[in-house]
Amino acid sequence: MKLYDFPQAPNPRRVNIFIAEKGIEIERVIVDFAAGEHRQDAYRAMNPACDVPMLETDKGIYISQIRGITRYLEEIYPDTPLLGRDATEKGLVEMWEHLAFMNGILAVAGVLRNTSKGFVDRALVGPHGYPQSTELATRGATQIQNFFTDFDQQLANNQYVAGDAYSMADITTLVTCDFAKWVKAEIPKECTHLRAWHAKVSERAAVKANP
Amino acid sequence: MKLYDFPQAPNPRRVNIFIAEKGIEIERVIVDFAAGEHRQDAYRAMNPACDVPMLETDKGIYISQIRGITRYLEEIYPDTPLLGRDATEKGLVEMWEHLAFMNGILAVAGVLRNTSKGFVDRALVGPHGYPQSTELATRGATQIQNFFTDFDQQLANNQYVAGDAYSMADITTLVTCDFAKWVKAEIPKECTHLRAWHAKVSERAAVKANP
Repeated sequence: MKLYDFPQAPNPRRVNIFIAEKGIEIERVIVDFAAGEHRQDAYRAMNPACDVPMLETDKGIYISQIRGITRYLEEIYPDTPLLGRDATEKGLVEMWEHLAFMNGILAVAGVLRNTSKGFVDRALVGPHGYPQSTELATRGATQIQNFFTDFDQQLANNQYVAGDAYSMADITTLVTCDFAKWVKAEIPKECTHLRAWHAKVSERAAVKANP
Repeated sequence: MKLYDFPQAPNPRRVNIFIAEKGIEIERVIVDFAAGEHRQDAYRAMNPACDVPMLETDKGIYISQIRGITRYLEEIYPDTPLLGRDATEKGLVEMWEHLAFMNGILAVAGVLRNTSKGFVDRALVGPHGYPQSTELATRGATQIQNFFTDFDQQLANNQYVAGDAYSMADITTLVTCDFAKWVKAEIPKECTHLRAWHAKVSERAAVKANP
């Protein structure tokens, strides 16, 4: 099994923390993003979505998208469950991971990819070029602030994002908070619950090992 | 158990088809979207994301987001699996469902919500108001065409979206194709594989029962 990786980027970091939390070892293949290797024919033949991370199973099946990779790994390595322990918790983890992704990761990416010179005509992940949009960058900045206050509210009443157990929903929320610094956004001082939770989960060994 | 529903809309339709495929019966509570009931205090207290569908379990737990609802239902009703039958297929279903959602549903919604008078200052689902963006509507229209050609390619080599079994990835892809008609986009004639697959899955009883 191999993980096609680019550990400096926030989305691969989500999977790298997940893997470290499970205490498993997976061979890495570093994709040269700076050289655009993820959009070249050899990589595109394996992963038409042209993104990382991407997992190649022992049987040579390619699984992309973090939801696909984490679900596969959770199934074959069920110890240290990170996608929920029973039916209700599994539902709640998917729910909160989706909200963190939609309202957090995508919001920060919306600012970064629509403002950075490195993403001119590449405003969306994937094989297709899209022009940058200042309207989207502006919207993203507002979304980030709403993300902080909404998740602060959830953490006012819960130890972890999806309830009383640490899960993939925490990983995506944590990565969002750190990724937000790339666009000069920080958890506001008044979001005391989110700040306390962020300080706590940042101390986890799996998180420290994947800064 | 109750499903808070608005069956005219595409996202609830995804869950309604999923439920019908499983052959299970769940009580429905219709949310009055036209009256904005989903953003009023009573509903917001149950579901701060202010969206439908939303599931209330027998223990009174509220699970929103289609990923959360379908995962919960798959766990408690494992017959007729729609999220994959083994680890690899589970990974591939999540992968393809995510791609159909990101590149299909969100693209069509991007056009609709950024152009329709019904969504002025409500360009994104959820509790927060966002202004419409003509840039986003334009981008969405391009994304829809890329969605059609990308999924046509996948269906050139596979019987169903995620491989050789019908799954939630087919449901989201089907709903995207039908939802696209709301913004006057149709599967292009040259996408013969996608068209043939669409004709086939549209004949399923669960799909016909949830038009």
